[in-house]
Amino acid sequence: MESTATHKPFSRPRRTFRRHAAPNVPHRREPVAKINPLPEKSGGAPKLKVYALGGLEEIGRNCTVFEMGDDIVIIDIGLQFPEEDMPGIDYIIPNITSLRGKEKNIRGVIVTHGHYDHIGGIPHIMPRLGNPVLYTAPLTAGIIRKRQEEYPKAPKLNIVLVKGDSRITLGKYFVFEPFHINHNISDAFGVSLQTPYGTILHTGDFKFDYTPVNDEPADLVRIAMFGGAGNVLALLSDSTDSDEEGHQISESDIGKDLRKVFEMAPGRIIFGTFASLLTRVQFILTLATEYNRKVLIQGRSLISNIEIAHDLGYLKYAPGVFIEERDFKKIPDNKVVVVCTGAQGERNATLMRIANNEHRFISVKKGDTLVFSSSVIPGNERTIQSLKDTLITQGARIIHTQNMDVHAGGHAKQEDLKLMMRLTKPKYFIPVHANRYLLQAHADVAESIGIPHDNIFMPRNGQVVEFDAHGGRLTDETVITDYVMVDGLGVGDVSEVVLRDRQMLAGDGMFVVIVTVDKKTGALIGSPDIISRGFVYLKESKDLIERARAKVKKIMLDSDKNSPAFEDYIKNKIRNEVGQFLFQETRRRPMVLPVLIDV
Amino acid sequence: MESTATHKPFSRPRRTFRRHAAPNVPHRREPVAKINPLPEKSGGAPKLKVYALGGLEEIGRNCTVFEMGDDIVIIDIGLQFPEEDMPGIDYIIPNITSLRGKEKNIRGVIVTHGHYDHIGGIPHIMPRLGNPVLYTAPLTAGIIRKRQEEYPKAPKLNIVLVKGDSRITLGKYFVFEPFHINHNISDAFGVSLQTPYGTILHTGDFKFDYTPVNDEPADLVRIAMFGGAGNVLALLSDSTDSDEEGHQISESDIGKDLRKVFEMAPGRIIFGTFASLLTRVQFILTLATEYNRKVLIQGRSLISNIEIAHDLGYLKYAPGVFIEERDFKKIPDNKVVVVCTGAQGERNATLMRIANNEHRFISVKKGDTLVFSSSVIPGNERTIQSLKDTLITQGARIIHTQNMDVHAGGHAKQEDLKLMMRLTKPKYFIPVHANRYLLQAHADVAESIGIPHDNIFMPRNGQVVEFDAHGGRLTDETVITDYVMVDGLGVGDVSEVVLRDRQMLAGDGMFVVIVTVDKKTGALIGSPDIISRGFVYLKESKDLIERARAKVKKIMLDSDKNSPAFEDYIKNKIRNEVGQFLFQETRRRPMVLPVLIDV
Repeated sequence: MESTATHKPFSRPRRTFRRHAAPNVPHRREPVAKINPLPEKSGGAPKLKVYALGGLEEIGRNCTVFEMGDDIVIIDIGLQFPEEDMPGIDYIIPNITSLRGKEKNIRGVIVTHGHYDHIGGIPHIMPRLGNPVLYTAPLTAGIIRKRQEEYPKAPKLNIVLVKGDSRITLGKYFVFEPFHINHNISDAFGVSLQTPYGTILHTGDFKFDYTPVNDEPADLVRIAMFGGAGNVLALLSDSTDSDEEGHQISESDIGKDLRKVFEMAPGRIIFGTFASLLTRVQFILTLATEYNRKVLIQGRSLISNIEIAHDLGYLKYAPGVFIEERDFKKIPDNKVVVVCTGAQGERNATLMRIANNEHRFISVKKGDTLVFSSSVIPGNERTIQSLKDTLITQGARIIHTQNMDVHAGGHAKQEDLKLMMRLTKPKYFIPVHANRYLLQAHADVAESIGIPHDNIFMPRNGQVVEFDAHGGRLTDETVITDYVMVDGLGVGDVSEVVLRDRQMLAGDGMFVVIVTVDKKTGALIGSPDIISRGFVYLKESKDLIERARAKVKKIMLDSDKNSPAFEDYIKNKIRNEVGQFLFQETRRRPMVLPVLIDV
Repeated sequence: MESTATHKPFSRPRRTFRRHAAPNVPHRREPVAKINPLPEKSGGAPKLKVYALGGLEEIGRNCTVFEMGDDIVIIDIGLQFPEEDMPGIDYIIPNITSLRGKEKNIRGVIVTHGHYDHIGGIPHIMPRLGNPVLYTAPLTAGIIRKRQEEYPKAPKLNIVLVKGDSRITLGKYFVFEPFHINHNISDAFGVSLQTPYGTILHTGDFKFDYTPVNDEPADLVRIAMFGGAGNVLALLSDSTDSDEEGHQISESDIGKDLRKVFEMAPGRIIFGTFASLLTRVQFILTLATEYNRKVLIQGRSLISNIEIAHDLGYLKYAPGVFIEERDFKKIPDNKVVVVCTGAQGERNATLMRIANNEHRFISVKKGDTLVFSSSVIPGNERTIQSLKDTLITQGARIIHTQNMDVHAGGHAKQEDLKLMMRLTKPKYFIPVHANRYLLQAHADVAESIGIPHDNIFMPRNGQVVEFDAHGGRLTDETVITDYVMVDGLGVGDVSEVVLRDRQMLAGDGMFVVIVTVDKKTGALIGSPDIISRGFVYLKESKDLIERARAKVKKIMLDSDKNSPAFEDYIKNKIRNEVGQFLFQETRRRPMVLPVLIDV
């Protein structure tokens, strides 16, 4: 690592990228450990149950549970970003109802890599699981610890770092060994879980990258040895890109496109990216040194991730490559690079603030080159398009090349998925980490290369797959996986009712009718008050409101004040008749809320 | 057309598709008409102004205005689907403020083809323009008339049909001639508008298709003659696919993929498509006859479009290819095809109802093949994904091949766009029909083949481009193009205020505080009433509500009832302090609405 401090270490960047091995992932070729011998022939052993608390009906919320006797092992505790029909929700985390009362059995939580769809539920869920030991790699641990700082009330995590040659016994029935794979973040691993019935492999998110950036290539030999040992009971494999033909390209290839940007940009270069896409940041830092530009980093999460990765040796840069904010304006435009968060059009990210002229000292100007260096998360297309339009209008050039975003993802494509199956030779196959359509596509890939149809399971979230001495099967047993939504400080307190109300309010607004009634006579006092928002523009709808008010008065006059359930009756009548009146007049259905005040 | 009634006319479908020319688009090669001679040398002639009321900052709401002296010509009156931050809005139509008082000058509205982003504003806007003559092709006219039936109060449209050899004088300064291009709907044309300063060409939406389906190939010779005549003042050209390299593929090529579906489907085939994608429907009908299947059509708009297109000769099928609903269950699964609307996951479309088990007599079962035969409209990705998941879960196979959706669009790609420029040799170039990012990409294409940078204009919506004897220029003059939103029966009555309220209500709900006050003493009567929706689940938040109530009581007690602006003061105080309290407790910001009732 000292070499990074010498003069111009990046003059031949491609070779440099490959030569520097990440310090904690030694390239090892020792044979795979023998299967855990306990108990002999698994005669009286309990069944092994495998189920997912998320990740089988969506991209995100990844969390898989392995349970055998009194031993429970959990892989990943991720979050899922909300669907379009969940306004106001921050994110969704796994539902851990099925683990209630079994907290003491949890032998460990294994976290495969540092992306939010694998770590995002940790601050909320770990305390409720009794804070079991968390096994993960150094970079992931750094990212998890950093995020934990936002939750000062959560107990300190008990993290044990694992390396390429770790071998960890988890209770009576499980032995865990990580195996190195590639992803678009360093330090990602797959999980080998030896059980009395055979080895279960869980790939985590993966691709095979023969020329990764600041990382070792996936440990193909070791993975092959699982297949060679011939006792892989089941393979749980990443399905995110399972509908894409061919091979995923290498992180190194992204450098070619980024180099073009540096060659062609006449003025400032502004990169929008994810805080976690550190390989992109590595390329940018290297190219900046080579092209004699200084780098300004903007965005809190990006800065902290760079610090974590650099401290651990996963990010290398020449001294003096960064500039401070105060020096930014002093440097000519063609000597500057800005790296910031916000390539998905996130509302509060730096790129959004720059585009909207709300950034403290950067605004877009003619001659700027804006680079969107991340793939588009489904659902964000329109937001990103509108962000680009805003930037274009301010005179920037936008680069979002096909090579950079679509083809250089972090996930295995069909040929890579086949390679994983061929290397591991699993008896049973379970596609994971995607929605149903992609899981089916992955299942089809498995069947196409000869895994028997009956040995491919496609459980739903919570549906239990069972293994014993006789083999494996998909059962009808299902654990609870209902959404647990996080909204502000509330975890799980936003119900379907609240969401449905929000959707209704969003669509046509609301219409509150307040009727003041004499407690004794039941007679209307004064005129009904009407409060409406999000329905019609009140200033231009006085006539409509007046007629609605008249309608309410008439309802009150026509009603029998002496009926026993007068209040409920009158509320229903107002809700229905005013609702119908407003729909007839406007074809809109605001939420009508009648209020009776007795005085 | 009689030939379509003979036995098995579709045994060689590829050839059949090409042979049948659409009846109203004769293949013509006569020379381009001479330029309108009025007035001589354009000495005292007024300036020609060109501006768009939509389509230069979005995909949709296409509407371009040409104004010279007392003559106005309009091309297309489309709609735009709402953005994500416009909850409850049906769609947006062009703002015609700039035409107010000039209605009598409108010499004609030309409609290039029958898609909603080009015709959708017609029922709302034509009456307000004084119902000028509408010039369009027969299929487009049929679709417009059908939609007009939904607006019984709108006056009858005055439609004049145009053909490939039409030449129509519009006022003193304009002569309009259509020229045939291809799109993924038949009968689409581009507009040649001869003016005293030269010919302006507007492509409409287009691609070049050498082997179109039920349509003639684009009239390349005629288009080339515009360039040959050497007087094309400006080309306004479709930018929808301007960031895609290469050539758009032919509608005929789609047939190859569809054929594979028929060859491989073991049971029923269910196609989800757009009502307007009639070339897909043509393929399905032809292949159904060939593969001995019967076709059931589901979806009102699809049925009416098929009727319109068939009546005009744009859709051909063998007799008896359709079955009635009552016969549907009698036919074996492998002899049946269902064609329905809903490939974008539209809430009320047939495919959605089938997937959700809400269709009257079709539900998905194992063995069904579901085909999504349309490209994905940006913003719909997640909805479509979730629709597919629902279908997969019910045992269907899903086909959404890359060839069918991504690559067979209706729009010219970069090489096609260059061909259009090379054929027409325009002096000025104006990219249209897309958002800024794509307009810029199209401008780059133009510059890359030698159109001078200064002759490429990228006006914003409403920004006027001016032409006279000295040439053309982008001016600072801008007409109003503010959104006119259609929501239910309301046109333009949903303001920014209403939208902002809806967004706020959607995010964190609302919290109404009703305080009843003694008119004379100003004292609080009883306890404040609180009504909340979309904020927290009330049943589980009684404590929070109780504390909010206590807060309000305290505010009332502490306030001076004799201050002159007591009501405003107390409302503000409740809004701020209760809002802050709720945020502290929940990190949510519901809309707090205080109401004072004097009794």
